[in-house]
Amino acid sequence: MSRFVVNAGNYPIYISSNLEEEWKNWVSAFSFNPSKVALVMDSNVATYCYPKLKAMHAYFGTLPTLILPPDDLNKNLFYLEKCWHFFHEHQLDRRSCVIAFGGGMVGDLCGFAAATYHRGIAMVQIPTTLLAMVDASVGGKTAINYNQVKNLIGVFRKPEAVFIDPVWLHTLPVRELYAGYAEVIKHALITGGGSYKRLLATVPPLANNLYQVICDSVKIKRDIVVADFKERKYRKVLNFGHTIGHAIESTSLIYDETPLKHGEAIAMGMIAELYLSHKLCGFPLETFEQLNEYIQLFFSNKFNYDIKNVAHFVHLDKKNFNNQNNFVLLSNIGKPEIDVAVSDELIYESLDQLQKI
Amino acid sequence: MSRFVVNAGNYPIYISSNLEEEWKNWVSAFSFNPSKVALVMDSNVATYCYPKLKAMHAYFGTLPTLILPPDDLNKNLFYLEKCWHFFHEHQLDRRSCVIAFGGGMVGDLCGFAAATYHRGIAMVQIPTTLLAMVDASVGGKTAINYNQVKNLIGVFRKPEAVFIDPVWLHTLPVRELYAGYAEVIKHALITGGGSYKRLLATVPPLANNLYQVICDSVKIKRDIVVADFKERKYRKVLNFGHTIGHAIESTSLIYDETPLKHGEAIAMGMIAELYLSHKLCGFPLETFEQLNEYIQLFFSNKFNYDIKNVAHFVHLDKKNFNNQNNFVLLSNIGKPEIDVAVSDELIYESLDQLQKI
Repeated sequence: MSRFVVNAGNYPIYISSNLEEEWKNWVSAFSFNPSKVALVMDSNVATYCYPKLKAMHAYFGTLPTLILPPDDLNKNLFYLEKCWHFFHEHQLDRRSCVIAFGGGMVGDLCGFAAATYHRGIAMVQIPTTLLAMVDASVGGKTAINYNQVKNLIGVFRKPEAVFIDPVWLHTLPVRELYAGYAEVIKHALITGGGSYKRLLATVPPLANNLYQVICDSVKIKRDIVVADFKERKYRKVLNFGHTIGHAIESTSLIYDETPLKHGEAIAMGMIAELYLSHKLCGFPLETFEQLNEYIQLFFSNKFNYDIKNVAHFVHLDKKNFNNQNNFVLLSNIGKPEIDVAVSDELIYESLDQLQKI
Repeated sequence: MSRFVVNAGNYPIYISSNLEEEWKNWVSAFSFNPSKVALVMDSNVATYCYPKLKAMHAYFGTLPTLILPPDDLNKNLFYLEKCWHFFHEHQLDRRSCVIAFGGGMVGDLCGFAAATYHRGIAMVQIPTTLLAMVDASVGGKTAINYNQVKNLIGVFRKPEAVFIDPVWLHTLPVRELYAGYAEVIKHALITGGGSYKRLLATVPPLANNLYQVICDSVKIKRDIVVADFKERKYRKVLNFGHTIGHAIESTSLIYDETPLKHGEAIAMGMIAELYLSHKLCGFPLETFEQLNEYIQLFFSNKFNYDIKNVAHFVHLDKKNFNNQNNFVLLSNIGKPEIDVAVSDELIYESLDQLQKI
């Protein structure tokens, strides 16, 4: 059985295909004895994963549960309040614990609810999507979307532990799996080295080396986050692809009947920002073209938005200050540059590139 | 001119009657240069203090302002969202700063809004009530009330700086001033020594030694908070009087047409908990009787609630765990004991005592 433990600052991330065993060991090793435990998941997870979780370990079947509607669209104030209400209704106190079982939406929303209930109660994460495994579960960011801005309201707050079991990925639609892979690509691009080589050797349908992919990505993110938990400086490299990616995602949430997944928007964002990297930081043109092709192996979404709408959201990005658009770009693979000012003209030009794909 | 600077962990509290000078010095000493600054206050402060603030320093008149209705009743999710909306409307970014100008309600609510907007932006506090000066502005607790439970939702988050100028106290109604004095009494009771001696020498109308009272109290709270910021253990001593006090306050918010002020409820809570201290921890009876009289010099509110209703809120207290009522009691002046289990019978008995006053 494969097993890997990542020390993510001051909490452990267990990557293992034996969740029951890991859970039992952790409970006894950390004398985990909360006054109450509650479980939060979305309705997809309730259908496709919860029966298996209960079969793995009967304990999980005994907990009070809150089932949220899936989708990032519901990572909002309304469901934040539902979480608070649920905690209060079940009389969780400051020594209680919440388990977030699901994708990034449940982790972020439930994480924020737990981080603010009684000024912060314990939370454990059992991510079920590739995105949540390699990204949302590492680094303690919690948030809700607000006024159509992604993650505008939130706090930094570490979970007690994260249990990653690749078994849940078999329950995912391919579209969801690939969406998570966007962050894997990002991690390899900003880090380079062995993980980048392994990236290029990995092609659809991702069946064989998922375990290695997860371990690589979790370690990369851990290293960055531990170095700069509150995103004062270096952690910003993780925003590569996200300035334009988030803006596309926000636009899609408004205009698309079936909105893009986060990772699908980030994939487009990375192509646009690789283009900006070439224009502003000397990123090699041939590598840009190679990656453009590679990314499209997984993502075939068309960019058909009004560029003005997307640019509007770029201007609202959290990384901006002093009325300047601040990007993370790459001068080469593994060579990120932070706080690069980008003109509106170039932003329009990079979005125009996307329209041509 | 009197001037006193308290280092509250990693932010300064200036106690001074020259706010303009302190502000200017701080801005230059800390190279304070936020991308935007916004001001939040309540409507009483807007009427009675804001004109003076603008006269002190024209800068404050140039800021975008949000005016909230006064009163703890409005420290809720509705006005939390108003704050977020206001920040977003004025395009505050992660390098912006919010000034909370007012009492504890504005400090707690605006503090929580700032601590969660963009996962935490800078906040400066200019408290205008005695309560906010000696209590709410020290220690980084932010919160809103939720489901009729005080401060159920919030986070720990330090401000950048606090500017205490006793000048604002002249704008306060006597009732409000005395309400703040309840926390001064609490600080002296849990600490003892010189501050307790000075306490007993201080009688209504509090006109003469307010400056000394504020300095004493801020220092006491600072010492406790710095030793235990996240209230793992010792900080709990600050909850003396608050288990029953908060429950009375919550009850009053529901049943009284003119609800009790926080400090008025805490004054009653202290009497009840001094009684419990006598019953359970050997607190001297004569000191209890002396303090009962002393507290009533400032507070003449009658306890006329249904004891069952108050006891209900005691059971919801944040300090409870494992279904046990946990109190901070005193074995003597300056000798707090934390996590003291108190039976329901004794809680009823202590509330019964209040009814006899």
